[in-house]
Amino acid sequence: MTPKTRIITRREEPVRFAALGGLEEIGRNMMFFEYKNETIIIDAGLQFPEEETPGIDYIIPNVTYLEERKKNIKGLIITHGHYDHIGAIPYILDKLGNPPIYATEITREIILKRQEDFPNSPKPIFIMVKSGEIHKFGQYFTAEFFDVIHNIPEGIGIILHTPIGKIVNPGEFKFDYDHDGKPRGLDIWKRVGEQGIHTLMLDSTGAETPGWSLSERVVERELEKLFKAAPGRILTATFSSLLDRLAEIIKIAEKLGRKVAISGFSMKSNIQIAQNLGYMKIQKGTLIPLEEIHKYRDEKLLILCTGAQGEPNASLMRIANREHRHIKLKPADTLILSSSIVPGNERSVQILKDNLARQGPTIYHFKMLDIHSSGHAPQEELKTVMKLIKPKFFLPIHGYYFMRMRNAKHAQEMLGLKPEETILTDNGRMVEFHPNHLRLTSEQIPAYYVMVDGLGVGDVGEVVLRDRRALAQEGMVVIITTLGRQNGRILKNPDIISRGFIYLKESQQLLEDVRRRIRGIISRIPFRQPLDADYAKTLIRDQIGQFLYNKTKRRPMILPVIIEI
Amino acid sequence: MTPKTRIITRREEPVRFAALGGLEEIGRNMMFFEYKNETIIIDAGLQFPEEETPGIDYIIPNVTYLEERKKNIKGLIITHGHYDHIGAIPYILDKLGNPPIYATEITREIILKRQEDFPNSPKPIFIMVKSGEIHKFGQYFTAEFFDVIHNIPEGIGIILHTPIGKIVNPGEFKFDYDHDGKPRGLDIWKRVGEQGIHTLMLDSTGAETPGWSLSERVVERELEKLFKAAPGRILTATFSSLLDRLAEIIKIAEKLGRKVAISGFSMKSNIQIAQNLGYMKIQKGTLIPLEEIHKYRDEKLLILCTGAQGEPNASLMRIANREHRHIKLKPADTLILSSSIVPGNERSVQILKDNLARQGPTIYHFKMLDIHSSGHAPQEELKTVMKLIKPKFFLPIHGYYFMRMRNAKHAQEMLGLKPEETILTDNGRMVEFHPNHLRLTSEQIPAYYVMVDGLGVGDVGEVVLRDRRALAQEGMVVIITTLGRQNGRILKNPDIISRGFIYLKESQQLLEDVRRRIRGIISRIPFRQPLDADYAKTLIRDQIGQFLYNKTKRRPMILPVIIEI
Repeated sequence: MTPKTRIITRREEPVRFAALGGLEEIGRNMMFFEYKNETIIIDAGLQFPEEETPGIDYIIPNVTYLEERKKNIKGLIITHGHYDHIGAIPYILDKLGNPPIYATEITREIILKRQEDFPNSPKPIFIMVKSGEIHKFGQYFTAEFFDVIHNIPEGIGIILHTPIGKIVNPGEFKFDYDHDGKPRGLDIWKRVGEQGIHTLMLDSTGAETPGWSLSERVVERELEKLFKAAPGRILTATFSSLLDRLAEIIKIAEKLGRKVAISGFSMKSNIQIAQNLGYMKIQKGTLIPLEEIHKYRDEKLLILCTGAQGEPNASLMRIANREHRHIKLKPADTLILSSSIVPGNERSVQILKDNLARQGPTIYHFKMLDIHSSGHAPQEELKTVMKLIKPKFFLPIHGYYFMRMRNAKHAQEMLGLKPEETILTDNGRMVEFHPNHLRLTSEQIPAYYVMVDGLGVGDVGEVVLRDRRALAQEGMVVIITTLGRQNGRILKNPDIISRGFIYLKESQQLLEDVRRRIRGIISRIPFRQPLDADYAKTLIRDQIGQFLYNKTKRRPMILPVIIEI
Repeated sequence: MTPKTRIITRREEPVRFAALGGLEEIGRNMMFFEYKNETIIIDAGLQFPEEETPGIDYIIPNVTYLEERKKNIKGLIITHGHYDHIGAIPYILDKLGNPPIYATEITREIILKRQEDFPNSPKPIFIMVKSGEIHKFGQYFTAEFFDVIHNIPEGIGIILHTPIGKIVNPGEFKFDYDHDGKPRGLDIWKRVGEQGIHTLMLDSTGAETPGWSLSERVVERELEKLFKAAPGRILTATFSSLLDRLAEIIKIAEKLGRKVAISGFSMKSNIQIAQNLGYMKIQKGTLIPLEEIHKYRDEKLLILCTGAQGEPNASLMRIANREHRHIKLKPADTLILSSSIVPGNERSVQILKDNLARQGPTIYHFKMLDIHSSGHAPQEELKTVMKLIKPKFFLPIHGYYFMRMRNAKHAQEMLGLKPEETILTDNGRMVEFHPNHLRLTSEQIPAYYVMVDGLGVGDVGEVVLRDRRALAQEGMVVIITTLGRQNGRILKNPDIISRGFIYLKESQQLLEDVRRRIRGIISRIPFRQPLDADYAKTLIRDQIGQFLYNKTKRRPMILPVIIEI
């Protein structure tokens, strides 16, 4: 092959891109780029279950497409250590052929900690990365990393050098502010922009939120005010992954001479990791075991808890239900919930707050504060990054269609881009990056939910979920009819079992009516050998279903069983 | 009886009060006062189902206590026409002995409209009330009514004159503002206060919301701006009960020369009622039938829709799913969602917005605006009312414990009341109103959920709900074992039916293992006549349940059936 031919081939071949999750939901972030026979993956997150997926533990990305091409995979880059970016790793690592994972130190530690729960997942191979480093993968892709501020340490952004140009995915970020309220570190973004960027990809979670982030300085100041005013113990509840916030809280406690106890396994192990890596510089003697809190005066104590979202088994829920081994609330306690409510959890959080409030402590809920100091850049920060990076194309990622549309509109306004230069794609939809345009293809690769339920990964499908939803709505009735093989006659009174429909013990008349109807149905079926059991079942399902609907205006699932003896 | 004795009796006997709903949730508002053999009820609302009550249509108040004393009931006062205040009427009217309903004109019309769907409910007897009127009920209670501003016309507040003093329940309200942003109509509250009020009861829904209501003037101005900028059709989606907002929208449409079409049955009938009573003065020719919108130019059209909460069958959802008979979205359309999201509906609304956005219209979501112009007075308005009424005691109503606690704290601050003068009670907990104190008794009357499901009222109880929740989580497995009565032997291969567990067709091996285990279990039971079926069932349930858990880490409901032939 002469050099000339190679150049022509490159020109003709686009970089191909698809997201396997994260574009029609919040969570399950995973995407990849491919060029010829080389593939680079970014993130492998999980999504928490939804109302429509009852009983499911997690939803993970569908990696069928990548699995079929696993020999091409040159690396998996992880932008930061949150579960919506790392949570699928133990489930998919083997399927992807255990490619090297490119991550920062703390991200690696968090991934390794989680692997302990998955002894059958392969031992991950890590390549450590740092801001400013450039890593080459195979022949076509090179990644340059840069620091971003998120609410967990060591988030990294990626400048992916590809045959068609440079593509930036900064992962999730927000701005940091100095004491005068000025954003800090904008020069990093500027330097990225000066390289000449083909496409910028930006998280859209904050695209509907107006304004700028609230500075963590302000949050710190507000927390310190509350801490100073607290007459007794202070309990704070937040996500165990909000390591930066936790570091701040501990710092304030030290300043005010309070000891710190931790309630919650995940929080304890996260703080341990952050401490080992030097992200939390906790003074000797600050941390005390939870079982020793009674040795200290109340006004010298701070307790860090998990469970601000009303999670059933977290420590705050156990405190609310008066089931916690070491913590019983006192009226002089001050309880600070420092996390915004994840949509769908509103009612659990309200019940949690009620149960806590009934025990008398003073409760502060930092809802509004937190929305504006979430980890996701709001509108003005997104716009600032767009302006500093000045990409030729824009591709909004992470978030519902509506949020991504807003993000695309911002890019059109800020950069003068045309709609076809700010592409809105979907999970599994293949996008081509050409030197001078992006193309949304019609190629759709598998991207539908893979559900994790107990030990099963992917064995719960739409049929099972549909049944679960139906059972939850109206319950079910099993009708067992035993027939003689010789004459097709009913051998015994039909057995009826029902759950979630009505309390049958109190509905004897209805039960009798159903049995009489079943006998009628069977007696009208002409006797034939062999019996057409499917026909008999259909008659029972339809007629008993209709009868029960007329009587109750409910449609339980009817499950007829014919037993021939 | 001499006057003297009577006074002594009065002194000794408190007015008793209990709420049957509305104190641990938003909705299902109903409360009553009793003195000797006379009872006055305020409101009879419903509550929409929750995650923990799958398949339920509504939750209504438990009226067992009142039903047992129905001859005492002197009247049912309805403060306004929202479903959380009127929705239980058709279900309970008969149980209460069809007492007279005291309501304003539009409230009566809304109640009557709903009664049409309940032909078996008795014909309600209405006594019309107006602001300034005083109505006497029996011997002990007198009610004086005053106008309040809510987001539905003719909300009324009540000053209940009782033997121990005057109790004020203003129902739900917010302030109205003049063009300079000053609250209007504060003199009404002042005059109420001048009467000398024993206890003030206040809605707590807004007690966590800081500040004042956003003036409807501002909402109007913002809407008009959007309307003027719209290049094509305008569609607005809001609650069909937000009659004041609807009136404003129609007024702006008329001003800008747009015709108005209504999509949604409930909205049509509510607007009809408001028009008949003169609350909406719509010009002749403004309203056009929905099926005629094609006769008008797009920029001359406004369409009012229901379904801003993502309700499955509302018109907006049909539009989003491209299933609406008359409305297909066009890119030039402007869609305005004008209602805050009811907690729990966030995800439905997000999916709705995504499906709408994919069809290209410009979408505005008035979330923030709406929170601050909701029908519920926020903190500063609540405090203002407290200050103007200056009650001796304060009893927060409507809303979660946490909200009511906040409301009570406000009253303690504003009025210098002690905690025991600002009582926090629960649903069904009896409170005594004495001339010089309130007493929270330990008497608990039935107040637990009564669930409406199809035709059944109260026949779905905790057992059925628990089964529904369990079925939704892990599904179920029915195991039918047919035994010979003569020898206790298995006559045929056990039948296994499962729904919502795993897709059994793809788990033949698991199925075979289960069958083998069942044969093993049965063969180890010593033969006896009659067979101890319960014992066999317990063995199957426990052992198969454990086996399936070991294999899958899931716990489906196991339903063993033994058939003896």
